[in-house]
Amino acid sequence: MKPGDRLMKHFLQFKDLRAEEYAYLFERTRIIKTRFKNYERYQPLADRTLAMIFEKASTRTRVSFEAGMYQMGGSVVHLTTGDSQLGRAEPIEDSARVISRMVDLVMIRTYEQAKIERFAAHSRVPVINGLTNEFHPCQILADIYTYIEHRGSIAGKVVAWVGDGNNMANTWLQAADILGFTVHVSTPEGYAVDPGVAGVARQDCWRVFDHPMDACAGADLVTTDVWTSMGYEAQNEERRKAFVDWCVDEDMMAAARPDALFMHCLPAHRGEEVAAEVIDGPQSVVWDEAENRMHVQKALMEYLLLGRIG
Amino acid sequence: MKPGDRLMKHFLQFKDLRAEEYAYLFERTRIIKTRFKNYERYQPLADRTLAMIFEKASTRTRVSFEAGMYQMGGSVVHLTTGDSQLGRAEPIEDSARVISRMVDLVMIRTYEQAKIERFAAHSRVPVINGLTNEFHPCQILADIYTYIEHRGSIAGKVVAWVGDGNNMANTWLQAADILGFTVHVSTPEGYAVDPGVAGVARQDCWRVFDHPMDACAGADLVTTDVWTSMGYEAQNEERRKAFVDWCVDEDMMAAARPDALFMHCLPAHRGEEVAAEVIDGPQSVVWDEAENRMHVQKALMEYLLLGRIG
Amino acid sequence: MKPGDRLMKHFLQFKDLRAEEYAYLFERTRIIKTRFKNYERYQPLADRTLAMIFEKASTRTRVSFEAGMYQMGGSVVHLTTGDSQLGRAEPIEDSARVISRMVDLVMIRTYEQAKIERFAAHSRVPVINGLTNEFHPCQILADIYTYIEHRGSIAGKVVAWVGDGNNMANTWLQAADILGFTVHVSTPEGYAVDPGVAGVARQDCWRVFDHPMDACAGADLVTTDVWTSMGYEAQNEERRKAFVDWCVDEDMMAAARPDALFMHCLPAHRGEEVAAEVIDGPQSVVWDEAENRMHVQKALMEYLLLGRIG
Repeated sequence: MKPGDRLMKHFLQFKDLRAEEYAYLFERTRIIKTRFKNYERYQPLADRTLAMIFEKASTRTRVSFEAGMYQMGGSVVHLTTGDSQLGRAEPIEDSARVISRMVDLVMIRTYEQAKIERFAAHSRVPVINGLTNEFHPCQILADIYTYIEHRGSIAGKVVAWVGDGNNMANTWLQAADILGFTVHVSTPEGYAVDPGVAGVARQDCWRVFDHPMDACAGADLVTTDVWTSMGYEAQNEERRKAFVDWCVDEDMMAAARPDALFMHCLPAHRGEEVAAEVIDGPQSVVWDEAENRMHVQKALMEYLLLGRIG
Repeated sequence: MKPGDRLMKHFLQFKDLRAEEYAYLFERTRIIKTRFKNYERYQPLADRTLAMIFEKASTRTRVSFEAGMYQMGGSVVHLTTGDSQLGRAEPIEDSARVISRMVDLVMIRTYEQAKIERFAAHSRVPVINGLTNEFHPCQILADIYTYIEHRGSIAGKVVAWVGDGNNMANTWLQAADILGFTVHVSTPEGYAVDPGVAGVARQDCWRVFDHPMDACAGADLVTTDVWTSMGYEAQNEERRKAFVDWCVDEDMMAAARPDALFMHCLPAHRGEEVAAEVIDGPQSVVWDEAENRMHVQKALMEYLLLGRIG
Repeated sequence: MKPGDRLMKHFLQFKDLRAEEYAYLFERTRIIKTRFKNYERYQPLADRTLAMIFEKASTRTRVSFEAGMYQMGGSVVHLTTGDSQLGRAEPIEDSARVISRMVDLVMIRTYEQAKIERFAAHSRVPVINGLTNEFHPCQILADIYTYIEHRGSIAGKVVAWVGDGNNMANTWLQAADILGFTVHVSTPEGYAVDPGVAGVARQDCWRVFDHPMDACAGADLVTTDVWTSMGYEAQNEERRKAFVDWCVDEDMMAAARPDALFMHCLPAHRGEEVAAEVIDGPQSVVWDEAENRMHVQKALMEYLLLGRIG
């Protein structure tokens, strides 16, 4: 594939794919995960190499992509900022041209979404967003798959987002817009979601609530994130004060539907954004959610590299 | 396997396995090494992934585990502290739960033995100690295999440990207890082995000598380690003074049996803990010992993941 | 293979191989690249492991060797200085002895050529120079292959080197000496090529020009490098002044032959050593050149490990 090839797809934002493509990905994830659990060898990506470029440290993203690629028969080159000098020693466009001549797929974890969009515009191979300040589409892919695995279709359901109006929140909005569910958002003052970033078409796919308890009322899924994401450590103290009432506790879970699930993209800080009773309780599916990062990403990589199978 | 699975074994201390399991491992090592030397492909760990978590830098442990895993057909994810945030950004228990959902085996090189024990207690997959302040079981596995390869069974033999009463010394004691040999330990004052750490059952498996020459008398194997291990650099000056008489030189080797071997887990400082004439002399088997790290670890990983073969 | 084995070859300088070996390598590169482009699986290095030791950061060298090794079916252990302590914690000779017991091939990127020569002298396996202060043979291998791919044989041609009399320039001289072409070198005063480093036999294989335009006159290939290579950042300001007239621009390209190519080993600084119109213009083959690093290195690794095929 060449830059601009109309058949080549990137996964930079959740809105880069359509609802029917997500239906396909979730079904492929189910098949790929089942095979893996049964120790059935499946290596469609043999001979393919993924370059991972990290400008922010990561455990989950590292391990889930790297182990996932190996399970699919492929290989991984892991570049950190020190190694890769993305945009420092040379224009991002040049890095994109060179790296995409040598590998089959690129995953980037960086700060500005604009950086990954520029890289993708000059890449010969598909690019995956492994986290930016604005979006985290792979995590939401995993979260929705985990919901489906436990409860069936997410269409028409209510997801409560409690906490920071961050990249996770933005991505939930895009997903709700495409997949037909609703997000109830409650953030502290000053940490609201910026609707211009998510850019959703269907304005009734999300509602804002001043009080987190109201956002949780009747929700099918309650989810949150750390108060201070990577890159915002300087705001740590003011955030601790602002977010003090945005801790998902047993009262909030009681306000949600009785069969509501709890999710968290981890790492979690018990006693801050979530009570230990919730994350370690029976409604929490956070460990399945973490494992599913790997399985949805395997389906995603297969789709971006090979298109539809079967 | 799930946490607490009675069939799942970790290798956190030498005493985690029994004498007959070691006999099996040494025989498997011999077979695996021979096949490798003959370029016979043997990939029982295809589709399996090892996560290596390093909180201390390492060359030997890195290369021996990583190349070993590749030779067995498997893959490796290499995490350093900056990446993995072990116990920093989240509780170790959470890291164990997440990582062990994505890989098949975990090797950890860290400071406190307690940390690796906590990780293992919450892991779904086997955990291997790649070095802690208290123990270094993979190195002793390699050393004993190297002894067997050159001289036959180690049962009933005498191993002289000259120098620091450190993780290597502790592990030699556990090995002597299980495999039926004796360790003659001579350390400078203030650097003695703490018998509470090794926790051996058979008290006559080790003897303490004030003078290193007495420890070497009649020994079948003389071995030592650097005066200042990683993490103790602040004590460098005082250690140089204290250890000055604990240099394994030709006189000490002359006190040992004529067919005695010399081993060192490397890196070595010639003129400090060992004389150049000894480490570069005919009784030294340090390069075989280094290579055997890789082969014993292949046998160990095969055993932990697949159980007994054949 | 053992140290000193007469059949074992290293690739530490361009002059380590003979003209007919280069002819073989370029033909193998063509075959290997064609197969790769056609998605024909070719894994002659299955079971083989490459250790890469980096004392200087790198993207291109990392990705080209690592992806190349994976494409050939092999594996890679990536060591950085922090991990590998080359020459710090132990003599280089010891590192060479240990690492070459565990892997099949070693690539080193370091500062002093003497370091890599010492490593190779004690290695049981072939060693490849991935960049030193003195030489960069893999890059010149790629450059010449790229020339051949676009224009046919380089014998009898003229290569203009404009800029720093650095490792690239030294290696061009060795290549010209062996492969029968001529290098026109123009460097600012104080940055001349040191003929003692390149050590060419055929003195008429290179000519020095005071003015870069004169060096380019009639050239078949014009090539340059950044004004300040890694490790010389302290000289940045004085170099910017000294090199100001050594920018390859459209006038210089116009002085060259009409079908002249432009190459640059990247990263490039447009407006410094090269004008944007040149590097982004029709005579530039820099992206092919970058990709060919990977393909020539695959042929090189195949040759060093397996000898001649067929």
